[in-house]
Amino acid sequence: MEILGGPLFAVAGAGESHGPAVTTIVFGCPAGLEIERDRIQAFLDRRRPGSSKHGTPRREDDTVFLTGGLYRTERLLDGPAIRLSVAAPDSPALETYSGGFTTGEPLSALVFSRSRKSAHYDQLQGLQGAVRPGHADLVKYHKSRGFTDVRGGGRSSYRSTISDVIGGSVARLYLQRKFGTVIVSSICQVGELKSDHSVLDRFAIGRGRISAEGIAELERELADNELHACSTEFASAAGRLIRDTRVRGDSLGAGIEVVALNPPPLVGEPLYQSLKLRLMGSLGGLHAVQSCEMGSGWASVGRRGSEHNDPIRARGYQGNHHGGLLGGVTTGSPLSFRVGFKPTSSIALPQQSVTKGLDEIDFQLKRGRHDPCVGVRAGITLESRMAIELMNAVLMHQAGDADTDRFRLFPEV
Amino acid sequence: MEILGGPLFAVAGAGESHGPAVTTIVFGCPAGLEIERDRIQAFLDRRRPGSSKHGTPRREDDTVFLTGGLYRTERLLDGPAIRLSVAAPDSPALETYSGGFTTGEPLSALVFSRSRKSAHYDQLQGLQGAVRPGHADLVKYHKSRGFTDVRGGGRSSYRSTISDVIGGSVARLYLQRKFGTVIVSSICQVGELKSDHSVLDRFAIGRGRISAEGIAELERELADNELHACSTEFASAAGRLIRDTRVRGDSLGAGIEVVALNPPPLVGEPLYQSLKLRLMGSLGGLHAVQSCEMGSGWASVGRRGSEHNDPIRARGYQGNHHGGLLGGVTTGSPLSFRVGFKPTSSIALPQQSVTKGLDEIDFQLKRGRHDPCVGVRAGITLESRMAIELMNAVLMHQAGDADTDRFRLFPEV
Amino acid sequence: MEILGGPLFAVAGAGESHGPAVTTIVFGCPAGLEIERDRIQAFLDRRRPGSSKHGTPRREDDTVFLTGGLYRTERLLDGPAIRLSVAAPDSPALETYSGGFTTGEPLSALVFSRSRKSAHYDQLQGLQGAVRPGHADLVKYHKSRGFTDVRGGGRSSYRSTISDVIGGSVARLYLQRKFGTVIVSSICQVGELKSDHSVLDRFAIGRGRISAEGIAELERELADNELHACSTEFASAAGRLIRDTRVRGDSLGAGIEVVALNPPPLVGEPLYQSLKLRLMGSLGGLHAVQSCEMGSGWASVGRRGSEHNDPIRARGYQGNHHGGLLGGVTTGSPLSFRVGFKPTSSIALPQQSVTKGLDEIDFQLKRGRHDPCVGVRAGITLESRMAIELMNAVLMHQAGDADTDRFRLFPEV
Amino acid sequence: MEILGGPLFAVAGAGESHGPAVTTIVFGCPAGLEIERDRIQAFLDRRRPGSSKHGTPRREDDTVFLTGGLYRTERLLDGPAIRLSVAAPDSPALETYSGGFTTGEPLSALVFSRSRKSAHYDQLQGLQGAVRPGHADLVKYHKSRGFTDVRGGGRSSYRSTISDVIGGSVARLYLQRKFGTVIVSSICQVGELKSDHSVLDRFAIGRGRISAEGIAELERELADNELHACSTEFASAAGRLIRDTRVRGDSLGAGIEVVALNPPPLVGEPLYQSLKLRLMGSLGGLHAVQSCEMGSGWASVGRRGSEHNDPIRARGYQGNHHGGLLGGVTTGSPLSFRVGFKPTSSIALPQQSVTKGLDEIDFQLKRGRHDPCVGVRAGITLESRMAIELMNAVLMHQAGDADTDRFRLFPEV
Repeated sequence: MEILGGPLFAVAGAGESHGPAVTTIVFGCPAGLEIERDRIQAFLDRRRPGSSKHGTPRREDDTVFLTGGLYRTERLLDGPAIRLSVAAPDSPALETYSGGFTTGEPLSALVFSRSRKSAHYDQLQGLQGAVRPGHADLVKYHKSRGFTDVRGGGRSSYRSTISDVIGGSVARLYLQRKFGTVIVSSICQVGELKSDHSVLDRFAIGRGRISAEGIAELERELADNELHACSTEFASAAGRLIRDTRVRGDSLGAGIEVVALNPPPLVGEPLYQSLKLRLMGSLGGLHAVQSCEMGSGWASVGRRGSEHNDPIRARGYQGNHHGGLLGGVTTGSPLSFRVGFKPTSSIALPQQSVTKGLDEIDFQLKRGRHDPCVGVRAGITLESRMAIELMNAVLMHQAGDADTDRFRLFPEV
Repeated sequence: MEILGGPLFAVAGAGESHGPAVTTIVFGCPAGLEIERDRIQAFLDRRRPGSSKHGTPRREDDTVFLTGGLYRTERLLDGPAIRLSVAAPDSPALETYSGGFTTGEPLSALVFSRSRKSAHYDQLQGLQGAVRPGHADLVKYHKSRGFTDVRGGGRSSYRSTISDVIGGSVARLYLQRKFGTVIVSSICQVGELKSDHSVLDRFAIGRGRISAEGIAELERELADNELHACSTEFASAAGRLIRDTRVRGDSLGAGIEVVALNPPPLVGEPLYQSLKLRLMGSLGGLHAVQSCEMGSGWASVGRRGSEHNDPIRARGYQGNHHGGLLGGVTTGSPLSFRVGFKPTSSIALPQQSVTKGLDEIDFQLKRGRHDPCVGVRAGITLESRMAIELMNAVLMHQAGDADTDRFRLFPEV
Repeated sequence: MEILGGPLFAVAGAGESHGPAVTTIVFGCPAGLEIERDRIQAFLDRRRPGSSKHGTPRREDDTVFLTGGLYRTERLLDGPAIRLSVAAPDSPALETYSGGFTTGEPLSALVFSRSRKSAHYDQLQGLQGAVRPGHADLVKYHKSRGFTDVRGGGRSSYRSTISDVIGGSVARLYLQRKFGTVIVSSICQVGELKSDHSVLDRFAIGRGRISAEGIAELERELADNELHACSTEFASAAGRLIRDTRVRGDSLGAGIEVVALNPPPLVGEPLYQSLKLRLMGSLGGLHAVQSCEMGSGWASVGRRGSEHNDPIRARGYQGNHHGGLLGGVTTGSPLSFRVGFKPTSSIALPQQSVTKGLDEIDFQLKRGRHDPCVGVRAGITLESRMAIELMNAVLMHQAGDADTDRFRLFPEV
Repeated sequence: MEILGGPLFAVAGAGESHGPAVTTIVFGCPAGLEIERDRIQAFLDRRRPGSSKHGTPRREDDTVFLTGGLYRTERLLDGPAIRLSVAAPDSPALETYSGGFTTGEPLSALVFSRSRKSAHYDQLQGLQGAVRPGHADLVKYHKSRGFTDVRGGGRSSYRSTISDVIGGSVARLYLQRKFGTVIVSSICQVGELKSDHSVLDRFAIGRGRISAEGIAELERELADNELHACSTEFASAAGRLIRDTRVRGDSLGAGIEVVALNPPPLVGEPLYQSLKLRLMGSLGGLHAVQSCEMGSGWASVGRRGSEHNDPIRARGYQGNHHGGLLGGVTTGSPLSFRVGFKPTSSIALPQQSVTKGLDEIDFQLKRGRHDPCVGVRAGITLESRMAIELMNAVLMHQAGDADTDRFRLFPEV
């Protein structure tokens, strides 16, 4: 099942790249969280193609329509409206939710697709269609016995991450309200170009909570820089590198740091469903990812235990080599991961490939409005996935023992 | 999580009674099943309020919009269109799918709601709001700490069964194509009035497959009778009883027989996730159900083993006291269940109740466009739930051992 | 997966009727529950064959060995010991747990099997082996392509319910300690003989909590009567009926009432995973069950809404037609179900059957140490399954919103 | 729930480091796989502490007792026997399974623990007990409200991986028989010392299947070298480094390459439950892991798309930067991951720490029979986890469409 997270907080998604809409259902948000549509839209806008000059030229406005799971007695139905071709011409348009309180029931949301130039994909159609190197075209064709949607990669497109971001938005609003937890990401490498700065460097580890002001300043800088990176110089240099690479018809990999600041401690199951396992899977399993690291990552291999073990004092862990998780449980230190993306598979240069029927061909992509570097947009999805897993782990910890005050209805006599 | 069925074939739903739309995602349909929108619509039309003169007067046309999971190279986007208020006035409407082949990816569907007279529900709003006897109002209010949607029961409305029917439609198309399996239901009791006929009586048990013609004739009769029952006389008498009861402001219970004809044998896991357990839960767990029986049901208690054990001959089981399942596995005999519904909880007569704050009140429902007997419409939902669980069990059985022919890509040398 | 309950509290089981042991893992018990081995053993003793003169003559002592999930600093390892043939003869025996506190980690338990007369099952072996009418022999043989364990029905034996009872024991100890919830069952019908008494009749509904003394007295009577029924006269008469039926080589069905007294209110998810759905499945899905009812069950069908809706007053629901659940959520009224079992399939009388290769035979069971009426022992399993689902629902409700006090480690500054 | 893999093939485990036994249940193995106890024991022997001179000096023989899920008509009960202290002294010992065919029912296995010197752990007991840096002691104590087992880390010990290895053994036997798939691992880095060799270097990529002889030779070398690494020189040098580090009371990290040779193609779901996501989680989520990479891993970040995309020819992919998965689906190229472990947390050197009550202390471990480098033993667990996820994905792919030949029982007429 296409479910991310769970069993308590989870996201289900459906809808392919060039289909009518991406549909999202978010399960398990506690009742009573106030959600405004604008807050979800703001996260989605960061994901949108065309939101950065380094992303794909494809333009979608990705307006989110909230269609279920909210309630309040006023201003409930002030969201954008829909008119149906099957309705009488003079029947009123159907308003959607502008916001409200969650009720404990699932939330649903729609993002319609307006860009559907299927003709672009004739090159890939059927048994004689070409296989794009680096993509799942060949395996998906044979896995589905030929019944695969070739338009934009079908559901394997990055467009499916709309659901991740919507689900993540709900989780983030909850985590921020309850715990002051904020999740950020920063591009730390583009091709061979590495940043000297990291999110964690900005904050003193082991000195208690990070201030809301400090976080807000960081978020402003990330938004203002040319790329979503916490160093202006690196962002500019990486931007130039991406432009140059695009001109050459080639593509670049990227590394992203993703961090939860002020995470709740004591969260996460041990062992087989540990929060570490879930985050390594959810972040490391995203499209195009080839590497996922926690805390000091692979560099830990080269260290001695006496260097790697973070000392503990009464105010907290005095270092974050561990990355915020020990034994799969949060320590309260920032939850810190680093994710490595391969270079975008779609390139303009000629490549050796086959048809789906395994005839060898010289392949050249007929069209190419693609990100030359997926790292430009992937940060918001990583943040969302971290939020979803953290939210689920919070509710799992909450379930850890029954508080009888929650189980009262009639007076007991 | 709001998931019905699974882990292989499953349905997720969201959307409350008076919200903008009911959203459905169907997981796990194998690639290559051709689905036309009209086939799903036909099942939904049976569920629709107002589709029978004995149902609620509320009118919805329940048009289904397919928004994900289908593909074909022509006539894909001939479904009903949507126009968005956020789009430029001259931008083209967004077509949805008219049908296509499944791709193995999740399907998504929308049914919009046009009837949203929330003002009807002021009587129920807040801590001073009334509790309707027989409904979940009181427990849902306190469970959600007050954040509950009172409009039409919120998500606990029968309107949520739209998702059951959509998911069931997909399963039924698959089961019919692969195995000739057809699932039918027939009302067997309304109030104290019992039918003398049953679906199973029409077909000789233990004589092999039931003919497509015999099934088609049964389906015609069920559709033509005043109620969805296989006896014309009973349907007419029950119709009169319902009309009389409605006039008196009261309501009636109903019993429904639901049967899968020509089910695939050998399907169903044993024990803790057995098909019996799943069907007893899925059918017995539907809104307003208070009893669920398999095969000869409670009557089995009063029988001797020598009477109850169905004899077995080379052509099959010579009786169906067992109801099509032994040890939780299908025998190939019709899968046969009987489900008892309580009388509709919403009645016009005065009742003793409380406010949500537990003050005692004399309750009288201010409005009442409700089914006097839920049995009139519940059959299609029971059929759908049976289809969903049977479909999941089919795929589970298929997973029972790897056939290496399915795991080939490049030539092996 | 062989998992009962979940996703928070769940039980996994393995081990076939005549195998070395039944293995049980219990997931999700909150940390801090004190468990003594004797308490679990007492529940298991009620399940044991031979624990009643009406059960099967097969004798097992069913001693439970606790092997994981408990801790305390003293008297931890005072449980029964195991000596391994692979250890040196003078190495010490391995003690198991006599009790301790749960740690939040899974519990594990073993019940070894001493009765393994496999030779009894030669009649059933292989493609020429006979199919016992009413059993899963035929479908399991073909489902598994012949790789099925014929000894005592393999894992489909009632012996697998050892895991249900162990898991249920843990849940019951927790529910009783936290909420004073006690789950009882009473045989209400044997063959055509019906009891005039029910558990619910003993307690005034709608008057608040039921006293611990009242419950204890009921439990004593249930234990003292010839059968586990709350009427001495009925128990004696039913006992005679069972003896007579055994002598004739035949078998009888049974009906069991199972009730949770003082259940916590507000527990249970709505709709697709509702507590009603889960209980109908778990109770109705047990071996040999053909009917499952909640509250007034099938009798609800014949009632008007004005009769069926339980009035509500400030102290609670004034009736329990609803059976303790509305909209799938507990109301605090006793959780009340009734379950109907078919007559035991194994009988001594001759029957028409086939071999697994579908050759017709006149079947006569060569041996017959079987219960003539499974109702004699099934009550404890139903109680256990109700406890498991209720426990899971309690933890799900607890997860309904995060209490920030549970998420503290270092002082916040 | 402590479940690894699933929903079709999965492993459940229970039992803490110093408890009586580790209990394992393996779900979902297809019926008909012949399993000998010796094959499982051989894998477990590779995991055992003391199996290498670089591991912990703690000695366990880790004999596996198979107690459920197998059947055959002869030599079934030739496994090691158990004698129970509760049985009469002259009652026969209870034999366990020596092997047999799987039946489709769950398998169960026990490994008893003989080494239980709990006194060693007094230093860690209670609120005044010390917190070991790098371990989960502090968070587990507070998460469980003090109810935690301090003996050897309780269930968070590496001893819990016995279940991984047992489950993995079953999967490996199935994958090897069906597809010739063999999973191997090789240590590629110890501390700062890196190996020049990799498993993949030995085999020509893109030339079809790897021969059984080639694989057998590799396995012999891995077993013969001082450490489980495919280079003799590296293994010897790394062995010296480990010995030196142990003497200094310190510890070392390690990197492990884990590869499935001849994996079945077309296996793995896309997106939210993709095989990539599952493997990144399962491998990356193992105790002490801080980094997990697929194919060329983090090095992909620095490459251009034109360098990274593996060319495709009629005989297969001409390179394995992709690591055997595209879009989460297997391509038939070796499934290739690299996992980085932190240095062992338990060291003999003094460290800054706190008590569980957060009083600052100078911590020195009172005893230290620990691996100075967990990489010495972790390979077998990584192999097992890869096997479990691959096996589950194989069955998921098999479920992809019903083959009607599998659904026959009686002749159809």
